[in-house]
Amino acid sequence: MADYNKLALEMHEKHQGKIEVVSKVAVKTRDDLSTAYTPGVAEPCRQIRDNADDVYKYTAKGNLVAVVSDGSAVLGLGNIGAKAAIPVMEGKCILFKEFADVDAFPICVDTQDDEEIIRTVKNIAPVFGGVNLEDIAAPRCFEIERRLKEVTDIPIFHDDQHGTAVCVLSAIINAAKVVKKNFADLTVVINGCGAAGSAIARIILAMGVKEMFLVDMKGILNKDVPETMLNDNHKDLAGKTNHEGRKGGLAEALQGADVFVGVSKPGLVTTEMVKTMAKDAIIFAMANPTPEIFPEDAKAGGAAVVGTGRSDYPNQINNVLVFPGLFKGALAVRASDINEEMKLAAAKALAAYIPDDELGVENIIPSALDKNVAAVIAKAVGEAAKASGVARI
Amino acid sequence: MADYNKLALEMHEKHQGKIEVVSKVAVKTRDDLSTAYTPGVAEPCRQIRDNADDVYKYTAKGNLVAVVSDGSAVLGLGNIGAKAAIPVMEGKCILFKEFADVDAFPICVDTQDDEEIIRTVKNIAPVFGGVNLEDIAAPRCFEIERRLKEVTDIPIFHDDQHGTAVCVLSAIINAAKVVKKNFADLTVVINGCGAAGSAIARIILAMGVKEMFLVDMKGILNKDVPETMLNDNHKDLAGKTNHEGRKGGLAEALQGADVFVGVSKPGLVTTEMVKTMAKDAIIFAMANPTPEIFPEDAKAGGAAVVGTGRSDYPNQINNVLVFPGLFKGALAVRASDINEEMKLAAAKALAAYIPDDELGVENIIPSALDKNVAAVIAKAVGEAAKASGVARI
Repeated sequence: MADYNKLALEMHEKHQGKIEVVSKVAVKTRDDLSTAYTPGVAEPCRQIRDNADDVYKYTAKGNLVAVVSDGSAVLGLGNIGAKAAIPVMEGKCILFKEFADVDAFPICVDTQDDEEIIRTVKNIAPVFGGVNLEDIAAPRCFEIERRLKEVTDIPIFHDDQHGTAVCVLSAIINAAKVVKKNFADLTVVINGCGAAGSAIARIILAMGVKEMFLVDMKGILNKDVPETMLNDNHKDLAGKTNHEGRKGGLAEALQGADVFVGVSKPGLVTTEMVKTMAKDAIIFAMANPTPEIFPEDAKAGGAAVVGTGRSDYPNQINNVLVFPGLFKGALAVRASDINEEMKLAAAKALAAYIPDDELGVENIIPSALDKNVAAVIAKAVGEAAKASGVARI
Repeated sequence: MADYNKLALEMHEKHQGKIEVVSKVAVKTRDDLSTAYTPGVAEPCRQIRDNADDVYKYTAKGNLVAVVSDGSAVLGLGNIGAKAAIPVMEGKCILFKEFADVDAFPICVDTQDDEEIIRTVKNIAPVFGGVNLEDIAAPRCFEIERRLKEVTDIPIFHDDQHGTAVCVLSAIINAAKVVKKNFADLTVVINGCGAAGSAIARIILAMGVKEMFLVDMKGILNKDVPETMLNDNHKDLAGKTNHEGRKGGLAEALQGADVFVGVSKPGLVTTEMVKTMAKDAIIFAMANPTPEIFPEDAKAGGAAVVGTGRSDYPNQINNVLVFPGLFKGALAVRASDINEEMKLAAAKALAAYIPDDELGVENIIPSALDKNVAAVIAKAVGEAAKASGVARI
């Protein structure tokens, strides 16, 4: 494998970062200057002053997303702060542009106070058509997202939660088809109940799965075992899962399960544990860069379909398949929100992107580099926004 | 003259605003994705985590300016708010890029509370190498700028004040040469004592002019006439000007003056008033789009050199000659501030851009479209930053 650390340092230094802000119009002549700037620019200003919605007509807002982070939970690096988070946020921005022609700009906030973050994002919202929250630690991310949805009139979307959830859901939909199991009858185990794990759990429940076990630091979430629930989010999810009241840890949760979803730590799942799962188990081991279990070890335990976050194995679960198209669809209809209906529509569209007759144990999700995916997701998301009443055009 | 209002509406709608955020690196292959994004991107993050200054090495920060406005004093339109201000701020951003290859991004804040603005800009400062404050009403702009200089470690520059001041100073330096008067001996009248007028006064005083009259809504600023001073800024300037204690309005101020600088309202100066000025008067009538006096009328009163803000007359005083190069110079040396020395250096470099033997009554300042100016100013500003101790590389 290439030494990506070295390559990344060289590339980031050579280009001094990855984003650039360019003009869509020429500024060569006096007429150009008088049209793009004074005196002509006063006229679009007047139009917006008199009709606020014209901001979508005459500015970049309608296609512009803020990628906001406080640097508190960046990749596997943890709480590295605002400045150190910038390379990731710039990376996110260029993916928006390259995959969906959506303009995106990094906003790394020099505070980890929730109220400060909320006020800051609210204050700078006028120029943006949407906000992608990124790498903000759980459980703070839940409250920040919820409050920002209340105080702004643009879509707020925490990608670590919902982008991951949409991607995983689409992968499970297709994997279930491959192993010929009914989606609603799957028993799902999710290891890691932070931002990503919680959102994955909620969207899978929303799609109709009846039994699920969530495992976090204190074992299987169990509403009758208070010490398994570390925060309000855990309490809420404990009430919706583990109906049989199972106790124990990951090993106990996996017994008889159809699906394992890992958003946790390297190496937590063994071949032996996979052997205790149901026949034709589905494994998504997404700890990065080292998964909870490597595909060859999962297969040795009897798993039928295995996906990871890695690009060097089949079935790479990568949010880049989701967030560019999801925002593009929301922006195209000036959605006021990205709601559950839109996320489910995105997951179904992503799953349906691979025709049934092409599905296979190593082909349940498109390549992360497939730049045709975004338009398909955008269309489905825009329609779902209209159907659910959050579209404004 | 072309109908710039109509052209501007068409152009802004066709392109949906003027700015675009693009990638400086390719994202076509798995290797690209692994270098620009995960897993490679983690390495520049680690470097910055361990050495904060590396943020300049591995991100766009070092060449990135925030153009910040609260929409409280936009062009001649007044307090039109954050959304309606966006077309102007996008315009400013593309001028940064086109004239100096500096990336700039509009931040229009949805608050006119000074403390909120200061906190918001401080919070989003990590990704930016500098802040250009724009179209914020006086006297609030003074305090916001002063406080932001204290709470951030990047250059903060209110262009309506200092960009205008630098441009006017350079024009007066050259005009004085043309009429063969000694700069320090000029008597200068400034009409309008808000953001621009105050900064023009201060920089001209810093260049050694000994007598100056500032005229605002209540007449000539006079430290012994309390009603002429509307705020602390006026009080401070009253103590530094009008040493003879002259009273009255603009007509009284102009008697015997060598220079008139107008940053006020259309038509306030008549040919008759110009006739009362000293021989070979210098007139910069910058009310936009209609000046305090048209050049032909000023000439009829005996003025030797006349400039306006308009592109259809000679000697156009336009900030675009200043801010792109000034920021480029400050960013190039990672200046922690844009200080008086740097502004004076910019004004002198801009003046010196026209060789003495090419100076004339209709050629005291370069064309606003001359894209070679920025590099010359940048060089002078970088040197001044080093000499004055604010350069960090």
